[in-house]
Amino acid sequence: MNTTTPPLLGLMMDVPLNVSSLIAHAARHFGDTEIVSRRVEGDLHRYTYRSCDKRAKQLAQALIALNVQPGERIATLAWNGYRHLEAYYGTTGFGAVCHTVNPRLFPEQIAWIINDASDSYVMFDTTFARLIDELAPRCPRVRGWIAFADDAQLPALQSTTPLTSYETLLEAYDGAFDWPLLDERLASYLCYTSGTTGNPKGALYSHRSTVLHAFGASLPDAMGLSARDAVLPVVPMFHVNAWGIAHAAPLTGAKLVLPGNRLDGKSLFELMEAERVTCSNGVPTVWLGLLDYMKQAGVRPSTLKRTGIGGSACPPAMLRSFEEDYGVEAIHGWGMTEMSPIGTLAKLNWEQSQRPPEQQRRLREKQGHAIYGVDMKIVGDDGRELPWDGVAFGELYVRGPWVIERYFQKNDSALVDGWLPTGDVATIDRDGFMRITDRSKDLIKSGGEWISSIDLENVAIAHPAVAEAACVACAHPKWCQRPLLVIVRRKDAELTRAELLAFFAGKVAKWWIPDDVVFVDELPHTATGKLHKLKLREMFREHVLPPA
Amino acid sequence: MNTTTPPLLGLMMDVPLNVSSLIAHAARHFGDTEIVSRRVEGDLHRYTYRSCDKRAKQLAQALIALNVQPGERIATLAWNGYRHLEAYYGTTGFGAVCHTVNPRLFPEQIAWIINDASDSYVMFDTTFARLIDELAPRCPRVRGWIAFADDAQLPALQSTTPLTSYETLLEAYDGAFDWPLLDERLASYLCYTSGTTGNPKGALYSHRSTVLHAFGASLPDAMGLSARDAVLPVVPMFHVNAWGIAHAAPLTGAKLVLPGNRLDGKSLFELMEAERVTCSNGVPTVWLGLLDYMKQAGVRPSTLKRTGIGGSACPPAMLRSFEEDYGVEAIHGWGMTEMSPIGTLAKLNWEQSQRPPEQQRRLREKQGHAIYGVDMKIVGDDGRELPWDGVAFGELYVRGPWVIERYFQKNDSALVDGWLPTGDVATIDRDGFMRITDRSKDLIKSGGEWISSIDLENVAIAHPAVAEAACVACAHPKWCQRPLLVIVRRKDAELTRAELLAFFAGKVAKWWIPDDVVFVDELPHTATGKLHKLKLREMFREHVLPPA
Repeated sequence: MNTTTPPLLGLMMDVPLNVSSLIAHAARHFGDTEIVSRRVEGDLHRYTYRSCDKRAKQLAQALIALNVQPGERIATLAWNGYRHLEAYYGTTGFGAVCHTVNPRLFPEQIAWIINDASDSYVMFDTTFARLIDELAPRCPRVRGWIAFADDAQLPALQSTTPLTSYETLLEAYDGAFDWPLLDERLASYLCYTSGTTGNPKGALYSHRSTVLHAFGASLPDAMGLSARDAVLPVVPMFHVNAWGIAHAAPLTGAKLVLPGNRLDGKSLFELMEAERVTCSNGVPTVWLGLLDYMKQAGVRPSTLKRTGIGGSACPPAMLRSFEEDYGVEAIHGWGMTEMSPIGTLAKLNWEQSQRPPEQQRRLREKQGHAIYGVDMKIVGDDGRELPWDGVAFGELYVRGPWVIERYFQKNDSALVDGWLPTGDVATIDRDGFMRITDRSKDLIKSGGEWISSIDLENVAIAHPAVAEAACVACAHPKWCQRPLLVIVRRKDAELTRAELLAFFAGKVAKWWIPDDVVFVDELPHTATGKLHKLKLREMFREHVLPPA
Repeated sequence: MNTTTPPLLGLMMDVPLNVSSLIAHAARHFGDTEIVSRRVEGDLHRYTYRSCDKRAKQLAQALIALNVQPGERIATLAWNGYRHLEAYYGTTGFGAVCHTVNPRLFPEQIAWIINDASDSYVMFDTTFARLIDELAPRCPRVRGWIAFADDAQLPALQSTTPLTSYETLLEAYDGAFDWPLLDERLASYLCYTSGTTGNPKGALYSHRSTVLHAFGASLPDAMGLSARDAVLPVVPMFHVNAWGIAHAAPLTGAKLVLPGNRLDGKSLFELMEAERVTCSNGVPTVWLGLLDYMKQAGVRPSTLKRTGIGGSACPPAMLRSFEEDYGVEAIHGWGMTEMSPIGTLAKLNWEQSQRPPEQQRRLREKQGHAIYGVDMKIVGDDGRELPWDGVAFGELYVRGPWVIERYFQKNDSALVDGWLPTGDVATIDRDGFMRITDRSKDLIKSGGEWISSIDLENVAIAHPAVAEAACVACAHPKWCQRPLLVIVRRKDAELTRAELLAFFAGKVAKWWIPDDVVFVDELPHTATGKLHKLKLREMFREHVLPPA
């Protein structure tokens, strides 16, 4: 019995986790369930998972006929819509890689990304025709530009750009195509981070990671999707696969409602009501728009049950407004492009749900609890794990099957001892709830101690006269760095420096109170709507703090 | 561009799907969540996921010290309890295989299974001490018998049986053990089917299939488990891993309530109430017990929200009683040992949930809808796929990553063209809802046409005087086979052959109405509580049908 025996393998079917299996499942088992899309032309397009699968297969046939090889990158520059969804499945389904590009970046950044990825085709919504004219000359290796349109809607591009209409491309094929079984480790999607420093970096997902993430995203304590839901991803499909909704919806048979480029509060509200949307996910900015619209118009959602809020920290007032004013569960979450993106969600366990409301609220304002598939830890400057006491803060590290090992085109692992450093600084409390206290580079070091810029922004934003707040470090002769607040006042509101600083009294430690306030008309944002702290630091590098 | 390039792999972390990752996740992220177990001694035992993980590690240390090698099979003969759960993780966690044996089988069958599996150790609940005395002499290759007890509770076995107490085994180890990362294709669990014909056959799951199944089982349209749930598996842990609950609960952070050997209605009800159980799963027989108890005692569950019912077809009256009398959602499902076991669940999609109540009910009485991870089809005698029209019936075939490819110790694939034939005969309707019409060997062929024995049983069981009904084929000179009903009357109820046959009028086609009725005191059942049709056919092979 001491001899080594060969490993005993389980005797299960060897079925690879392929992205195509998601749309194939929906087509076969939820064939009549609808996908409703707001088109850039303004009208609503409706069809079913069965039709989506068929057209995705037509696209695969067309791309194969164009000699697109497995592993080749096909870019998209598009809003959330049915053709974009077909592009997801019609590329990955035969082994090509779907490279979703953020059209909100500057043209030179987009061109850099397309060239870095060596994209061979670019599919785009016709609203981006002018952008394509700027990109095409800079992207000589792109073999063709495919407009999400029929021939009649084909935009006029500069004559040298090789242009095809998507519908013409599809027309020639019948969709009689079997999704091949692919090695699940093959690349599925390529998403570049919108790094505020240096060039963007690509996260290259695998079929396996995409499918496992779709399972995780569907769980009751994540999006909780079922075949009775209608889910509206406000988060763009060019931003980390719409947080996995484009995969979780077909997995669970949820109806998909895709809002196109109309993301204002009124358009979203009307689409939600018309299509009995139960669940929607997006960044705080769009929810502000929705909440403002509902308040002004005096309307309430009749079917919406849950909103997922992530991408940047959610103001506590937003959580309260959704729940107390509208009876909509608002779930704060956190993730990153490098993790497909879901990492944590602020859902309570049973014991936590029995605590006094104020304690529950404080937990739910944090970024939340790791879902199965993600592990996390915080480490100190010495690299050692810090305690989960809600006080100690250190850099957040993550790992799991849907976390990247390294960036596209980079030879070096991005990991430290098998964990990915996130660049975020966080605490984790005894309940396992993580709270981002800052980006590591945004922390303010005053007299050798750290001050969280996000904590100070959260206090400022709670002032009724403040529309937006940013906090950055200013050089200080004695303390090395001190916090400076940059504030956008609410329209028609009045607020002085002294009034705002007085508002901090009792809310943070005395030595955390900012040294100065600057009022501006607007704050700089990144292409994904996050505060552009790097630019702010540059803008206020020379700012002279008043004497204490 | 025409040259073949090497495959482009995604750049994600290579994290194998290991069973140990489930308990590790629960220990780290739901460390304080409880596992409550009714012990065979009668008392309740309570501890947390954190303690469970530690003790599972102690067990792994102990087994490794006993020179148990990866791939070796360790048997369990035990009820649902915390030590059984530790055995799940403490064996699979280091690469051994947990072989759950059904203690309700006959001793000779159990011995045959233990020998077929070459189990090296057997862990057992002390209630099975007499059984162990019968088994030990027949299982000479078992190196040791481990009683789930401390030394004081150690049962007296025949002197030659090498016996250890589980607690003594664990005491020597400290749990300072890191779960190794294992190849996810390695075997995890071995479960034998309780075949009614021939010897039992083993399904050998892999770590990968177990974890993927746990994801599927947790989804909102499956068990819908969250960290606010408390789940009580009535289905035994010796029966297909308690339908995956022992894995789905730590994945989602649900509290686990394990009922031991007290499965009567009163005990279950009281445990559910005491431990605020929200969700419970089991076979119709135990639910009959619970419903009877609640009715007699005039009590209602205060926390129970959902019951999952499977293992054999659920009588429609049971679904109605749970929902209409007690407000508990009752979910009918179907699966088999060969598929880990979940295949279908009768959960409606949105459109279906808008239909008239009677139509909804008819759908929900079927076995249900395939969940992602499972595909199914029905095929005719010629092997071709039959339409999904709710009328055509043929053998049900399944496939997916948690379906077996072949049986343990068998060289031949169990598949036909990549699909597993289930031996069940079914229809699938336009909604994708599957209904088992029969086991293929239980169908009755009358005049060249098939009659479903299950349909006839369902009509009979709806008669208020019928406690249990079975329908089998009798030889018939003209029609080849004709249906015979075997009936157990309800206590104190009166019912004649003519009355029962008259009850069929208008409910089934005239030519389906059984030719005869035999009243018996009880029906034969298999070890898992299913009707033993093979034995019934033998019993009534010589039965002479009355003239038409």
